[in-house]
Amino acid sequence: MAFSPLVDELVESLRCLPGVGQKTAQRMAFHLLEKGRGGGERLAGALSAAMTGVRRCDSCQNFSDTPICPICEKPERHTGTLCVVESPSDLLAIEQAGDYRGGYFVLMGHLSPIDGIGPEDIGIELLLRRVRDESVSELILATNPTVEGEATAHYIADRLDGTGVLTTRLAHGIPVGGELGYVDGFTLTHAFRGRKPLTD
Amino acid sequence: MAFSPLVDELVESLRCLPGVGQKTAQRMAFHLLEKGRGGGERLAGALSAAMTGVRRCDSCQNFSDTPICPICEKPERHTGTLCVVESPSDLLAIEQAGDYRGGYFVLMGHLSPIDGIGPEDIGIELLLRRVRDESVSELILATNPTVEGEATAHYIADRLDGTGVLTTRLAHGIPVGGELGYVDGFTLTHAFRGRKPLTD
Repeated sequence: MAFSPLVDELVESLRCLPGVGQKTAQRMAFHLLEKGRGGGERLAGALSAAMTGVRRCDSCQNFSDTPICPICEKPERHTGTLCVVESPSDLLAIEQAGDYRGGYFVLMGHLSPIDGIGPEDIGIELLLRRVRDESVSELILATNPTVEGEATAHYIADRLDGTGVLTTRLAHGIPVGGELGYVDGFTLTHAFRGRKPLTD
Repeated sequence: MAFSPLVDELVESLRCLPGVGQKTAQRMAFHLLEKGRGGGERLAGALSAAMTGVRRCDSCQNFSDTPICPICEKPERHTGTLCVVESPSDLLAIEQAGDYRGGYFVLMGHLSPIDGIGPEDIGIELLLRRVRDESVSELILATNPTVEGEATAHYIADRLDGTGVLTTRLAHGIPVGGELGYVDGFTLTHAFRGRKPLTD
């Protein structure tokens, strides 16, 4: 390599970021060195603080600085409803939509026997314990609409069968603002089956 | 925001990287927190070391850990030929091609009167001093084939007019492995004008 050890190490380290290859890492390193030293130093501090300081919430498994995350700490979020999502970014999307005001449980993945990921790896026992202990009345299974997401939702629903807890799944249908011509057949079929009277 | 201050600060800091917006920064932060804590800590260290430790080479202006960069330090690279490039990534591309064995001068930009960037901002005086002091016989002006790059090359060539230093510009033509049908008209015209006998 033509560069100094420090620059080489920076380029190599940047490749740990998802979607960043050799060329992009180089471009990022040169950009930071040329125009963004302040930003680079801030990023170094933030990375170091987050890598050591961020843990999982003991209650919902979401990322948190404290043993219990800010959402779980709010008494008004304990509404008897829990929304189960696969990842923190799913939770963020729901929070940004702003309508749901209940609690969460973040699985940090989905069941995947082929990868050796079973119920205990994604905290389903912890979830079931919470459902029992906090007298949860509804569990919204908002896992992704993929094969693994559906399987995970059905597994959780099966485990709660007979306990009287209502398990629900998010509605399928056409996205708001979308064009019918671009919607796939499965989604359209779901949208037709779930149609509602206009006066609803 | 739904997240902890540490995660928020990490997402915000990642946005200083070029081409990284809110969504990508989020994805990067979650990836590091979930699966890449080791990589994240390594990146923090590399960033911090590079931001404080990397400087410009006193001789060629390239990024370097030392006052004189590894290329300028090698006596065999002082061949009387200097290659002038706009950025460290251009230098890297030429080094990776592996054919050129002379010295370099990195302008870290190009002349751009509209942005207030004049000859002194990109180190042209330092370059001219080197040409004089090191008895350079050829200056390869490998600035980009853009309006600003051409203007910068012509400005340097004009300043050296009458000094006996040979100034050259990289050849234009069709890229190796390219298809003629996709080559633009200007490049084709250059390729025709620069054609060579097959026995060459």
